[in-house]
Amino acid sequence: MGPKRKSLSVEELAAGIRRGDRALLARAITLVESTRPDDQKLAQDLLQALLPATGNAWRIGITGVPGVGKSTTIDQLGMNLIAQGHKVAVLAVDPTSRRTGGSILGDKTRMARLAVHPDAFIRPSPSSGTLGGVTRRTRETMLLVEAAGFDVVIVETVGVGQSETAVADMVDFFLVLMLPGGGDELQGIKKGVIEIADMIVINKADGDNLEQAKRTAADYRGALNILIPRSATWTPPVLVASAVENRGLDAVWEKISEHRAKMSASGELQARRQAQAVDWMHSMLQERLLAELTAHDDIRRRIKELEEDVRQGRITAPRAVDEILQLIRK
Amino acid sequence: MGPKRKSLSVEELAAGIRRGDRALLARAITLVESTRPDDQKLAQDLLQALLPATGNAWRIGITGVPGVGKSTTIDQLGMNLIAQGHKVAVLAVDPTSRRTGGSILGDKTRMARLAVHPDAFIRPSPSSGTLGGVTRRTRETMLLVEAAGFDVVIVETVGVGQSETAVADMVDFFLVLMLPGGGDELQGIKKGVIEIADMIVINKADGDNLEQAKRTAADYRGALNILIPRSATWTPPVLVASAVENRGLDAVWEKISEHRAKMSASGELQARRQAQAVDWMHSMLQERLLAELTAHDDIRRRIKELEEDVRQGRITAPRAVDEILQLIRK
Repeated sequence: MGPKRKSLSVEELAAGIRRGDRALLARAITLVESTRPDDQKLAQDLLQALLPATGNAWRIGITGVPGVGKSTTIDQLGMNLIAQGHKVAVLAVDPTSRRTGGSILGDKTRMARLAVHPDAFIRPSPSSGTLGGVTRRTRETMLLVEAAGFDVVIVETVGVGQSETAVADMVDFFLVLMLPGGGDELQGIKKGVIEIADMIVINKADGDNLEQAKRTAADYRGALNILIPRSATWTPPVLVASAVENRGLDAVWEKISEHRAKMSASGELQARRQAQAVDWMHSMLQERLLAELTAHDDIRRRIKELEEDVRQGRITAPRAVDEILQLIRK
Repeated sequence: MGPKRKSLSVEELAAGIRRGDRALLARAITLVESTRPDDQKLAQDLLQALLPATGNAWRIGITGVPGVGKSTTIDQLGMNLIAQGHKVAVLAVDPTSRRTGGSILGDKTRMARLAVHPDAFIRPSPSSGTLGGVTRRTRETMLLVEAAGFDVVIVETVGVGQSETAVADMVDFFLVLMLPGGGDELQGIKKGVIEIADMIVINKADGDNLEQAKRTAADYRGALNILIPRSATWTPPVLVASAVENRGLDAVWEKISEHRAKMSASGELQARRQAQAVDWMHSMLQERLLAELTAHDDIRRRIKELEEDVRQGRITAPRAVDEILQLIRK
């Protein structure tokens, strides 16, 4: 790991990050991902110090099944944005990520151009075990990269468990990538994702698949127009694109810009971010309270037993909760 | 309020309820809705005693905008089911319900035939103030009416806040009633409801509106078929009906039966109920823990202040949570 590095104060770290020092940014992210209490304290002080320098980025979430072309799309979109003068960070939320074996997301080999560009920064998913832990660290990393001057932050995820909802809760705009499909194999959209999607992009709209992609886009467009109330602020548009041929991505960014302009003007963007921050606070409070109070092995074991009793209809949920609370009070 | 009633033991109350004694059922529900600690203890003991006698009903949730015909639909459907030998209970979840002024749901004057039928039982929404309180009491009341022999339990709600999600979490089947619409006024479905709907019924499909209702049904049917993955266990069907003319409701019940048969055979019905019970336990535990630990006025006030600091971007959510936990520990 090299010689012991000179330890830096919060002020020095903060100043370095705001200056754009990539090595210090990486060090700060490592602090945020660390479970050591002294690292955590430093990380929290640093985040607090940098907070006024955050919030200026476009926060975009991207999801899609493996094989839909997320990496290619992010790489191409990122390069287009950099050509327009943006600085692009790419983060990932992958609750299946492990220390060994890594993650299928945030893969620098598949975003080869961004991976080596000075105006881009890619960070694989933290391997933290629980979705709650991964999302927390990703939110904190987002604050760090924003303070470091990245004005577009893309958060990539796959459709595992509630990871899409978790990412939608930390971004301004949530984009769903889909395949052109075809024949009898209309893919459909995972329940819960319909609700959070701000746009659908049918990727791989090239070659023999172009016509199919347009038909699929028209189908989804029609379906969404029927289901989403006319009175809603925003009906998710459905576009086609070919990331590998770099076609359609300008239109994609234009829609994202349109959404941002509209939501900024109406105050909804700010309201959304404020609600996200407050929700984060409340869900973190719940999580940590529960974790602290049930830290005792005996209590954890009894909770599991009571859970099974409730599941099997042997006791009512209120009775189980009464017993757990009594145990905790002792 | 009449002479002081002889107070009954849990065993006597339980036996009476299982026997079908309506007065005792009503008394038990009043206990469940009471906030007095002695009533609550009795209620919880009673629920525990009756638990083995519960779970045998069809649990159906119904929502729809005011004016769509919920009361008429429930009244007619209920009468049809009673004619088939069922016993029907109707509950309501209305977080806007107040002690004075009551609720627009569970209105016996608008379900006039069920209101006086011996094989039906209607209970208006508890006026408990919070959605959490109302849903808890409704779930408990559901257990009581099931133990009393009602084998169909309908839970009515309107689209206020998260009330639909709360009801979907306690039923086997969630039905969304809609108007025929027409012209440029396609209603659309509230976000979040698409995800939980097991069937859509276009009501008031009569007279001049019949053709429009069929078109609207075809539109929604097509949209759902596109959006819901082909691999999903159940694609919500879209039917038309006229509750006031009693047309289409047999087909509605047939679909509900089909769903139940399918889900029972696959084990999904049982899995869904088990998950609902366990989720109820966990959310109640979270709620009560938080309520107990933040009961102190100073703590509540500080939490509100920190919430505003987080909302305004003055401090990070993790920092706010750290401070709240420290306050609680003292």
